[in-house]
Amino acid sequence: MTDFAATRALFDLPEGVTYLDGNSLGPLVRGVPERVAQAMTDEWGRMLITAWNKAGWMAAPQRIGDRIGRLIGAPEGTTVLGDTLTIKVYQALAAALEMRPDRRVILSDSGNFPTDLYMAEGLIRSLDRGHELRVVAPEEVAGAIGDDVAVLMLTQVDYRTGRLHDMAGLTARAHDAGALTIWDLAHSAGALPVDVTAANADFAVGCTYKYLNSGPGGPAFIHVRPDLMEQVRPALSGWLGHAEPFAFDLDYRAAPGIARMRVGTPPILQLAALDAALDVWDGVDMAEVRAASQALGQRMIEGVAARCPALQLASPADPDARGSQVSFRHPEGYAVMQALIDRGVIGDFRAPDMLRFGLTPLYIGAEDVDRAVDVLAEVLDGGLWDRPEYRARAAVT
Amino acid sequence: MTDFAATRALFDLPEGVTYLDGNSLGPLVRGVPERVAQAMTDEWGRMLITAWNKAGWMAAPQRIGDRIGRLIGAPEGTTVLGDTLTIKVYQALAAALEMRPDRRVILSDSGNFPTDLYMAEGLIRSLDRGHELRVVAPEEVAGAIGDDVAVLMLTQVDYRTGRLHDMAGLTARAHDAGALTIWDLAHSAGALPVDVTAANADFAVGCTYKYLNSGPGGPAFIHVRPDLMEQVRPALSGWLGHAEPFAFDLDYRAAPGIARMRVGTPPILQLAALDAALDVWDGVDMAEVRAASQALGQRMIEGVAARCPALQLASPADPDARGSQVSFRHPEGYAVMQALIDRGVIGDFRAPDMLRFGLTPLYIGAEDVDRAVDVLAEVLDGGLWDRPEYRARAAVT
Repeated sequence: MTDFAATRALFDLPEGVTYLDGNSLGPLVRGVPERVAQAMTDEWGRMLITAWNKAGWMAAPQRIGDRIGRLIGAPEGTTVLGDTLTIKVYQALAAALEMRPDRRVILSDSGNFPTDLYMAEGLIRSLDRGHELRVVAPEEVAGAIGDDVAVLMLTQVDYRTGRLHDMAGLTARAHDAGALTIWDLAHSAGALPVDVTAANADFAVGCTYKYLNSGPGGPAFIHVRPDLMEQVRPALSGWLGHAEPFAFDLDYRAAPGIARMRVGTPPILQLAALDAALDVWDGVDMAEVRAASQALGQRMIEGVAARCPALQLASPADPDARGSQVSFRHPEGYAVMQALIDRGVIGDFRAPDMLRFGLTPLYIGAEDVDRAVDVLAEVLDGGLWDRPEYRARAAVT
Repeated sequence: MTDFAATRALFDLPEGVTYLDGNSLGPLVRGVPERVAQAMTDEWGRMLITAWNKAGWMAAPQRIGDRIGRLIGAPEGTTVLGDTLTIKVYQALAAALEMRPDRRVILSDSGNFPTDLYMAEGLIRSLDRGHELRVVAPEEVAGAIGDDVAVLMLTQVDYRTGRLHDMAGLTARAHDAGALTIWDLAHSAGALPVDVTAANADFAVGCTYKYLNSGPGGPAFIHVRPDLMEQVRPALSGWLGHAEPFAFDLDYRAAPGIARMRVGTPPILQLAALDAALDVWDGVDMAEVRAASQALGQRMIEGVAARCPALQLASPADPDARGSQVSFRHPEGYAVMQALIDRGVIGDFRAPDMLRFGLTPLYIGAEDVDRAVDVLAEVLDGGLWDRPEYRARAAVT
């Protein structure tokens, strides 16, 4: 049994704050500052350049990648860290399009995170070969998988509504139609049970600073289905994805295996933070996390339904149809969220009208949800959001 | 006058080590661990998501980019940080090729760092429009700039030999031929006076973990010539390069100015390290750094010439023709470098036969060079490198 009181003690949360934004930036994990300090003073400071081997820096993207792999059902040696999620999307997409040279459609949905769509747009324009980014409503995806689709690119959990796609079902459907799949797990990894192997996903990518708590700007991950690996040509063919980076050949030869998805020099300080943050998953059962998260979600939805009539549920009401967040619409959502934050309840706002609350059982319990509902009701009942300074503030991520 | 005794005190160097590898990984700067700790505990830990605005995280890539800009002669608002140098090369190259649609040649030289060439190869294969990467010897570059050249892509200082290209002269020649230029300043920024504005460079890119001491995997920078900025289409069109990232539009619109070269979420911990490390440049005169570096180089070359006949100078003998390193060839260079490192003199090795020593006056003085020459002579005179464990070790960066 996962002991959620014990996991909560692993997080360094500020007094008086109810933090329901771990789906945007996970909080500080105890031990992370010490691990990063060690990387700076004992490794960088004392070993200098020799730390690339002696301290295991060069191997870190794959070693820690395998730790992520265990959370998403990926076999050893098929997940690697580096860059940002935006870059990892590009790598997967460029490779997938080359693997389906006779097809021209990238199929995605309007619930995908914009950067995924933007990268597809940018790639299409660079290639200039008549590719099309076809964006449909989330519920229309299954029906839109035709035999012109080269790749189905989806974020499993909609960043605004929390709507959850059926990864295995849509992947099977894509494969039946001869298409490849790219799954963005930004709001899945560490949030709910994921099994990329069982789903037969071709590519999976994700960030680590949300439910995996690696800190601001932590590195992203990419997984490639093992049997496709050697067909993947790295479009971003950087030296650390070379078969022999230190031979300094003038010509590129892709490394065997997932190492080919490495690009440049890895961010060692951010990797050290991630490595330490991943310790919180030791002994955690993801099915229990999921059950606890669904219970928190229902509690919040019911509380809001009872006490905040001005809010409209934007997430699926069925807990099996959403990820680890609940979202509500309010025409003045931005100002409402500022009023909440001023009162110590931190969620976030997504344009045009969405209040978003991440539910993370490792450090959030029923009492936090109750407090959030209390404060929401107070802010809405009293019209406390209707102040110029709440309307005027710049948007936060 | 730059006080090099004072700047040396700003670095946390291990006792008994002579560090001549700051051209690969700059050493730890005092104050960096504290600044990174502050970013973790006071910002991430206490402010959580709100730190993106409250702690200035979102603006950091451009604010700190301007600090780099001042070291390379770039006007405010034309330099931004993020990703790795490998990615920044790709961004510049993809943009440059689109700006010269009727030309098909990327001209570079065999002294360029391999990742730059690999990224060009990868881009060419993705575009599949008959582009050619033409790699000539460094001394043949000027003569090879014909009217089929779309872009001249060079690393100003050769990573192996230290050979220095004439940035202003070659840029003028490229412009006369109608070509654009991309200058990789990996071994220039913080090493010698650079003026991208005077040279009229179109794109400049570089890393920060060498002479700028940002630590392992610190972010890279990119500068775009101001009058070209609005013509640059970002091939890596990530959300943070969007005109309104938090509008979450489905369609990409490039941000005005250098912000368009941003891609994904910036690595805040590595940026904090860089920001603190840049403080060492306050009050430093780069011309004095250059003079001191040249004096150190001559001292090393003369010492080696007098005492190490087995070594062959691989760098230009003329101090004005090389950057801030000196390199020597030895058929057993790898084993020789391992023997040096075991004796506390840290340089590095570059295949097939190059011993490389970075000279960084901010923390290296004449006595360090003398010690390095003493140990080199001892290792070579005594054949101390000829041990199986020196030959067998895995290569380090």
